[in-house]
Amino acid sequence: MVQEIGIGIAGLGTVGGGVVEMLRRTRPLIRSVVGADIVIRRVAELDERRLRALRIGRNIRAGSLEELARDPDVRIVVELIGGTSAAHSLVASALRAGKHVVTANKALIATRWRSILSLAIRKGCAVGFEASVMAGVPVIRALEQGLAGNRIRSILGILNGTSNFIVTRMAEHGEEFAQSLSEARKRGLCEAEASLDVDGHDAAQKLSILGSIALGKWLPPALVFREGIRGLEHYDLSEAREEFGYVLRPLAILKVRDEGVEARVHPTFVPAEHPLAAVSDEFNAALIDCDAAGPIMLTGKGAGADPAASGVVSDLIALARAVAGHERGLPPLPRAPAPGTPAVVPIAEVENKFYLRFSVIDKPGVLSYISGVLGRNGVSIAGCYQRGRSMRGSVPVVMVTHEAREGNVRRALAQIDRARSIVKRKTVAIRIEE
Amino acid sequence: MVQEIGIGIAGLGTVGGGVVEMLRRTRPLIRSVVGADIVIRRVAELDERRLRALRIGRNIRAGSLEELARDPDVRIVVELIGGTSAAHSLVASALRAGKHVVTANKALIATRWRSILSLAIRKGCAVGFEASVMAGVPVIRALEQGLAGNRIRSILGILNGTSNFIVTRMAEHGEEFAQSLSEARKRGLCEAEASLDVDGHDAAQKLSILGSIALGKWLPPALVFREGIRGLEHYDLSEAREEFGYVLRPLAILKVRDEGVEARVHPTFVPAEHPLAAVSDEFNAALIDCDAAGPIMLTGKGAGADPAASGVVSDLIALARAVAGHERGLPPLPRAPAPGTPAVVPIAEVENKFYLRFSVIDKPGVLSYISGVLGRNGVSIAGCYQRGRSMRGSVPVVMVTHEAREGNVRRALAQIDRARSIVKRKTVAIRIEE
Repeated sequence: MVQEIGIGIAGLGTVGGGVVEMLRRTRPLIRSVVGADIVIRRVAELDERRLRALRIGRNIRAGSLEELARDPDVRIVVELIGGTSAAHSLVASALRAGKHVVTANKALIATRWRSILSLAIRKGCAVGFEASVMAGVPVIRALEQGLAGNRIRSILGILNGTSNFIVTRMAEHGEEFAQSLSEARKRGLCEAEASLDVDGHDAAQKLSILGSIALGKWLPPALVFREGIRGLEHYDLSEAREEFGYVLRPLAILKVRDEGVEARVHPTFVPAEHPLAAVSDEFNAALIDCDAAGPIMLTGKGAGADPAASGVVSDLIALARAVAGHERGLPPLPRAPAPGTPAVVPIAEVENKFYLRFSVIDKPGVLSYISGVLGRNGVSIAGCYQRGRSMRGSVPVVMVTHEAREGNVRRALAQIDRARSIVKRKTVAIRIEE
Repeated sequence: MVQEIGIGIAGLGTVGGGVVEMLRRTRPLIRSVVGADIVIRRVAELDERRLRALRIGRNIRAGSLEELARDPDVRIVVELIGGTSAAHSLVASALRAGKHVVTANKALIATRWRSILSLAIRKGCAVGFEASVMAGVPVIRALEQGLAGNRIRSILGILNGTSNFIVTRMAEHGEEFAQSLSEARKRGLCEAEASLDVDGHDAAQKLSILGSIALGKWLPPALVFREGIRGLEHYDLSEAREEFGYVLRPLAILKVRDEGVEARVHPTFVPAEHPLAAVSDEFNAALIDCDAAGPIMLTGKGAGADPAASGVVSDLIALARAVAGHERGLPPLPRAPAPGTPAVVPIAEVENKFYLRFSVIDKPGVLSYISGVLGRNGVSIAGCYQRGRSMRGSVPVVMVTHEAREGNVRRALAQIDRARSIVKRKTVAIRIEE
């Protein structure tokens, strides 16, 4: 007789529905991999129509989150309700009741990393969150297991598909931000409230999770510097490509340095031949530089019901194998977080090349003024060009700097932008990653 | 007191040396991840100089492979001697003695898949072979665990770095095969005997391993169709790029179809915008198309002491965690292979677009003859051009076909190549993957 492993699912929205369908579709496969069936024993979902649409039958109990966390027939709780407050209560209750947990909730994992993992380790339970970053692309397993033993030097990620879709479209279709955003909405790539995506919150939470694994220490999302893509203009994407061969990507960057870690999310120019330049539209990628394995890149769809369900089901299978194999077998589990948080290098001390676009009146001495201020602030210029065409009464002067401390660049730009007699609007500054 | 997990290493060549160094370097990390130390108790290596160079001390026993397999202080045997005969004896003895095994030996795993895995499962032991394909890039874990629950539709891999280096160099430096091969040798990317790499044996073994995991059934390397890169000429790489926008890559291809699986290794043209076109030089990649997670790509260095050591150490850490967590905990293990081997579609029945270069004398009627023969064999032409310049007394006529059955193409080419009065040398035929 085939053994059965009972699970409970909280939240049957897009991802939850995808998980239910995938578990049905892959039953024979799961039986062969796990040696047991994964059986849904209980769900918690307020919307009755969803239960009917998914043909959740009478043999499956439906009820509150608390009942789910306490149901003795449920060995693994799948949290897919989103948000952090109720989700945290559910996860904590489930762990306290000795159940394993699987979640796709990046906000929850990123903001409650230490509390959730400490509780899980204390209770000997596992928390699977493969789907929380890059959905079905197994980047969590790669970092935690496949690259275990490597010191991670850096992670460059395209972790928010909506932002990547928007900047790809701006560059390729000559659109401005608002147009591309509305196209993303039309295609269902974007929530009504776009801020989570386009202001970098989503990517910062995902970088927090990858960083916490890589560092073995909780990197709270609040420590991640964050700048969104709202301010971008088509002009700069197009000029940087034509004049300097740069492609814009919404990057999440972790760099491990002797002085501390850089952790930042911002639109970034990369050379057209950079591996991340080839990752376009809504695709996600993580380029992980390891001391032994070298640079490793993972690419794929970072969102959608099926990809997210794939990540959740892979965790379910891993946990079910542990449960089926031996009651006290060690399930996959991130290592216990070291105390404290990593020292994060302040953004002002981060060094980057910059793309700068000044909007100035067209008269002699302007270029010399700008380069003078930059030079006095220790920012040296690698390339510069000025084209005759006037934009809103001013001409654009575009420069690319050598590596410069961000604090110096900001100080120089603040001074330049104060010179209202020659500078017509705020200077555009975009970081470059070679 | 920290627990110790004893391991034994057979073979201290490049990879073995890398493993020894990496275990030393990552001791604190391993302690935090495993909760125990991984300690080398015994080695088997005939070359005394290697023992000295690696500072293998007196506290580490040295001896024969049999002694290693039987040493009661060794919980995990690391097989790095290569070859299949002695390696198989060692692995089988170790498993019979109840030890876990880690190996980087693709030939061994590919050719003895069923016997090794069946024995391991019978003994409740695990076999880790992450390093056997793509070295440090965790593609085995991705397929086995991260994408567990997905039906794999296809795998397109660049699995042999030497071949990829050679074709990249031929295309970019205008070199012929022999020159690029000798450059690969100079850089240590190639063994003295290059056949394993350039004739596709290495890639076929790796595809066999990935395919066996994806299919849940042993796909022996002998069932993989294999064509090497020796016959390639710079002319075709350059023309296909200029005229049709194709880039040549040495692909390993698995496609799961209703009628059976396609399993083949051959040089292949892909469009310049294809994700695998961007994977150049000695880099490896696997593009895995999954029903739920969508297309996932992993890229990285597929060879070298450190990348291979990274794969081996990741397996050691996973097994050590299982050993340390609970003596009878379930270690990571591929599922038991289903009986039999998959039905493989004969190469003659595989459909592809083809790049064809005919070397013909320059006289009226030739083009019509060629297209006539192709047409009568059901091969239709998508594009064609002929340039005036003469090569060795003949002019090249280049065609790209629509999708055509390989058997039909071969039959047509055999007929055309027999027409010695107009065809001056064997027609070049290279498959295209869009």
